[in-house]
Amino acid sequence: MSVYLHDIPLPEARSRFAEALQKAGLWRVLGEETIVLDENALGRVLAGSVWAKVSSPNYHASAMDGFAVRAADTSGAQPAAPLTLPIGPSACYLDTGEPLPLEFDSVIPVENVEALDENSNLTQAIRKPTAIRIRAAVAPWSHVRPLGEDIVATQLVLPAGQVLRPVDLGAIAASGNHEIKVARRPKVAILPTGTELVPIGSSLKTGDILEYNSLVLAGQVKAMGGEPTRFPIIKDDFDLICACVQEAAQTHDLILLNAGSSAGAEDFSAKVVAKLGNLLVHGVAVRPGHPVILGTIVHSPSSIVPIIGVPGYPVSAALTIEIFVEPLLAKWLGRASVELPTESAILTRKVVSPPGDDDYIRVSLGRVGAKLLATPLSRGAGVITSLVQADGLMILPRGIQGVEAGNPVQVHLYRSRAELDRTILCLGSHDLTLDILAQFLAKRNRRLASANVGSQGGLIALGRGEAHLAGSHLLDPATGDYNLPYLKQYLPDVRVRVVALVGRDQGLIVKRGNPAGIKTLEDLTRPEVRFVNRQRGAGTRVLLDYHLSLEGIVPERIIGYNREEFTHLGVAASIASGRADCGLGIAAAAQALELDFIPLFQERYDLIIPSEHALSNLLEPLFEVIKSQEFRMEVLKLPGYDVSVTGTVISEV
Amino acid sequence: MSVYLHDIPLPEARSRFAEALQKAGLWRVLGEETIVLDENALGRVLAGSVWAKVSSPNYHASAMDGFAVRAADTSGAQPAAPLTLPIGPSACYLDTGEPLPLEFDSVIPVENVEALDENSNLTQAIRKPTAIRIRAAVAPWSHVRPLGEDIVATQLVLPAGQVLRPVDLGAIAASGNHEIKVARRPKVAILPTGTELVPIGSSLKTGDILEYNSLVLAGQVKAMGGEPTRFPIIKDDFDLICACVQEAAQTHDLILLNAGSSAGAEDFSAKVVAKLGNLLVHGVAVRPGHPVILGTIVHSPSSIVPIIGVPGYPVSAALTIEIFVEPLLAKWLGRASVELPTESAILTRKVVSPPGDDDYIRVSLGRVGAKLLATPLSRGAGVITSLVQADGLMILPRGIQGVEAGNPVQVHLYRSRAELDRTILCLGSHDLTLDILAQFLAKRNRRLASANVGSQGGLIALGRGEAHLAGSHLLDPATGDYNLPYLKQYLPDVRVRVVALVGRDQGLIVKRGNPAGIKTLEDLTRPEVRFVNRQRGAGTRVLLDYHLSLEGIVPERIIGYNREEFTHLGVAASIASGRADCGLGIAAAAQALELDFIPLFQERYDLIIPSEHALSNLLEPLFEVIKSQEFRMEVLKLPGYDVSVTGTVISEV
Repeated sequence: MSVYLHDIPLPEARSRFAEALQKAGLWRVLGEETIVLDENALGRVLAGSVWAKVSSPNYHASAMDGFAVRAADTSGAQPAAPLTLPIGPSACYLDTGEPLPLEFDSVIPVENVEALDENSNLTQAIRKPTAIRIRAAVAPWSHVRPLGEDIVATQLVLPAGQVLRPVDLGAIAASGNHEIKVARRPKVAILPTGTELVPIGSSLKTGDILEYNSLVLAGQVKAMGGEPTRFPIIKDDFDLICACVQEAAQTHDLILLNAGSSAGAEDFSAKVVAKLGNLLVHGVAVRPGHPVILGTIVHSPSSIVPIIGVPGYPVSAALTIEIFVEPLLAKWLGRASVELPTESAILTRKVVSPPGDDDYIRVSLGRVGAKLLATPLSRGAGVITSLVQADGLMILPRGIQGVEAGNPVQVHLYRSRAELDRTILCLGSHDLTLDILAQFLAKRNRRLASANVGSQGGLIALGRGEAHLAGSHLLDPATGDYNLPYLKQYLPDVRVRVVALVGRDQGLIVKRGNPAGIKTLEDLTRPEVRFVNRQRGAGTRVLLDYHLSLEGIVPERIIGYNREEFTHLGVAASIASGRADCGLGIAAAAQALELDFIPLFQERYDLIIPSEHALSNLLEPLFEVIKSQEFRMEVLKLPGYDVSVTGTVISEV
Repeated sequence: MSVYLHDIPLPEARSRFAEALQKAGLWRVLGEETIVLDENALGRVLAGSVWAKVSSPNYHASAMDGFAVRAADTSGAQPAAPLTLPIGPSACYLDTGEPLPLEFDSVIPVENVEALDENSNLTQAIRKPTAIRIRAAVAPWSHVRPLGEDIVATQLVLPAGQVLRPVDLGAIAASGNHEIKVARRPKVAILPTGTELVPIGSSLKTGDILEYNSLVLAGQVKAMGGEPTRFPIIKDDFDLICACVQEAAQTHDLILLNAGSSAGAEDFSAKVVAKLGNLLVHGVAVRPGHPVILGTIVHSPSSIVPIIGVPGYPVSAALTIEIFVEPLLAKWLGRASVELPTESAILTRKVVSPPGDDDYIRVSLGRVGAKLLATPLSRGAGVITSLVQADGLMILPRGIQGVEAGNPVQVHLYRSRAELDRTILCLGSHDLTLDILAQFLAKRNRRLASANVGSQGGLIALGRGEAHLAGSHLLDPATGDYNLPYLKQYLPDVRVRVVALVGRDQGLIVKRGNPAGIKTLEDLTRPEVRFVNRQRGAGTRVLLDYHLSLEGIVPERIIGYNREEFTHLGVAASIASGRADCGLGIAAAAQALELDFIPLFQERYDLIIPSEHALSNLLEPLFEVIKSQEFRMEVLKLPGYDVSVTGTVISEV
């Protein structure tokens, strides 16, 4: 079946596009405009070099408030053998910046002279004395700013291509220029297409998809120096899309046609480009984002407008802009392409990559001890939060099939090293209060990056030195105690501090109104009740097994016991969507999806912190927050939480 | 005399200011406003955390164009033993993003099925078959995006204090928010004062100073997220300044009063602050920039407006904004303060620092081989071009008296490492064609950083591994040859390529109209002619000595022979200002200051390039440029240049 796209390698796609633009005379600075030199010039790109029209200073100027003198006249002056110079023939007062009279060649700062009145007494009228007394000789040209010290007329002030910073504006002004030629901002049309799309702010029915790609794309284009125009949503209608593209081509330099770039029945983008111009590329071997379209629209007999078919998934869409649009805008603006700083990091999890693709993998980053650690984020092209969380980008080129955990990888940094240095990495079980903690820490110059790998996963990560702390709520069935017995097992040689974060209710999440009338664990064995469980190793699963065993219920009697979700919210989502009737979890998850909650047990959720980190400056604000009243008040706004234990040190060994 | 300021240490100045603001309730986020979520939100700072209102996706969605099936129904399907599933009861076509019907739990992508018509033949109507044939079993939840995969209602999307990036806008929209609360932009009034100031674009008389500080300050404030207002220039008049400050206080959050912050007669800033409010600090022990004023203006009985007296020298002014205004705006916006990345570099020249001050020293940076080299730039507080050229900042804290050359220093980077990696360092004699070279290289993704240390200085720098190349025009009096004899002396063990850059005229620079009628070197010995020389080691000085000796003129006969300037333009400036009548130099320097030029000799100006750099990828574009016709055409626009030798390899050993 001909539904496959023919993916071509990225370098070939790039060069086909560049060649087509080159042929059309569009592979260069698009145009220039003259603007007045004010603070709005910030970030604009110089279209021509700036040369100095005047010198700065444009005369020999006094560098201090002081007295102009002839250096030769001061020779021999000493602390014990002062010299007196009469004002007029031998000295003259100057404010900073005033021109040095031709008969003088040096300036003595006011604080180094004694001002004398007509009777040769000291006077307070320091600027209008009759004479000055000095106790040291000065060299010629002392405290004088010579003509052209800063800028000499005709010199190069800034080269074309400079992205203007505040100090650049000053230097341009100082060199006698008050207008500048800058590159015209490329106009970029962004056309969202899709019958299923609804505008931001709509209330959603099942099947509706919020159209926010155009917003991200517009933001990217703006940040890159372009001028975006967001078009209204266009239905999946070939003729309608053609008409909108033609309209956009009248007044824009580039068209971004979002979604419909694949090869499905409603995917019109390639056909639109083929009809209105020239389809250069359909499918590029990059992941995510391969259904990219590159082409040109014939706008008039003599001119074309480039068009890019941008894939619909948000991660693919954003990456397409970084890969294809950024270099094009850089070329059109005459500036250097943006280069992210890179650093070597240790990969914490194995990644597998299709050998035929350039694979762009977003990672979260954190420094634990001396090691920078890179953890691959969700690969889902639809997960925009993975873009928000991404601290860096790892590119596995074609031919590489993957990288094992523990290996060093080169990472392009989205965040500054300073930000990474104040990032607290928390792995383990997730709890909603971690979000509140993150919020409070953000105000204290710390970033909390947390990832959900389950309670046991968190302890294992601590053992490997891959996190600063772990969230855990592991019940020991033998003792009924939380976490401590597991530490001996997972972290036998590590000194740790265990701090209680919260007590929280665990209970049954059921459909709104609880139509199945579920009240106890025993109800889970009813034949019409479909249960959804948490994954092995999750604290909630341990808790369930403990209570099932206490009550003598064998898991086999529960339909769905083997169906696993990885988060409280995953459990709640299963129930909300009608896939299951019931699961064990926390009240906040039920509330998030407007489900009912039947509390059964209270458990303790602890933070497990190796002592080396507990004592570090990095984590200090975390302890401050946990102990604060404000944090507890905020936690209590969530249902099913108890803060009476919050901040208690449970154990420190 | 009481003209000294009482400088206090920086930390004390900061805390006095912060305490005063804290007391007034101004040491927190100033205020918030609700804005619509569009691309103009870029760069704004979230005033409150954003929580998800909806889940994304908000239903189980097909992740591919394909057929929804029950995973259990596919069990046993194999390549040689296909299964047929009838559309309707057992399968149903879905576009990407469509909701998964409740009776199904998995999706098989279209490319993995065979579409069958009513006669069980393959059909092209892939989306409307009668049945599908599959040759592999699928797992439950394959190619399904579960409800909440990206975002779950109620979760934290972004914490307060986040500076919004394009992807953040997308995540906020995806979470069902279409308005956001952001910190109000602080309004900052910038008041330039000084009777000697004239607006940008004015034609200059002696004594006039272009007022461009307010432009730089406004640019800085804008880049930091504030809203600057530039006031017109205010004369040095106490009452007038008071009136303007009071006016500004009505409608602004912060007042920057530029210049007049010292203790001179016309320095009214401190008196204005003391009269209208509270003078907290006058003088801070930082260099440059110590005459800083920190205070508050009483705006109404219950409210104050902070005011900062910013020193007049542009380098001091810009630094004052970085030190005092940036942290204040960060606090008012609720974002983290900007932290520059730091790196260790080797200092190439000794620096001396006043032990009582925190000393902020701007440096140029470049990587030669594996070493990052930091060279202190001009310390002149009036030299704005030193800000433009600065690649980094080195801070020597109070108590440190200096650092010797060759020592490692921590440098805060103004430029990305990528930019530094493509910087070509050229030391040695300066020639105006280097500016043209810089301009052409900027278009080829290279940055040329050149510093004038004289021809011999450049060769010494090459010997120490502190530059990629050196510009040199050293005549050997014994042979009449350029540069080559000196290489044996200065770089005996280094393989170098010598490339001719230009031939150029050297001659006498004289006043316009040549009133003294100077024509030959012999004229320099006339008693009324005041000469100005270049420094020892300069190629031009060597050239002069060579020809004086050829003509049998002893230097002692030339008045001013011992007066040294360090650049061609310095020589020209001496003559333009009437300090000297004549000097030896190049035609372009004479032209820059509208002086006359009497050509005497032609000399060759070479680039000396160690082979390891000559063969590097970094310098490749430099050779391209030198060989290009465009470069030569541009050089020929300057007076006194000859490009017939340009690009010729003179020697390669």
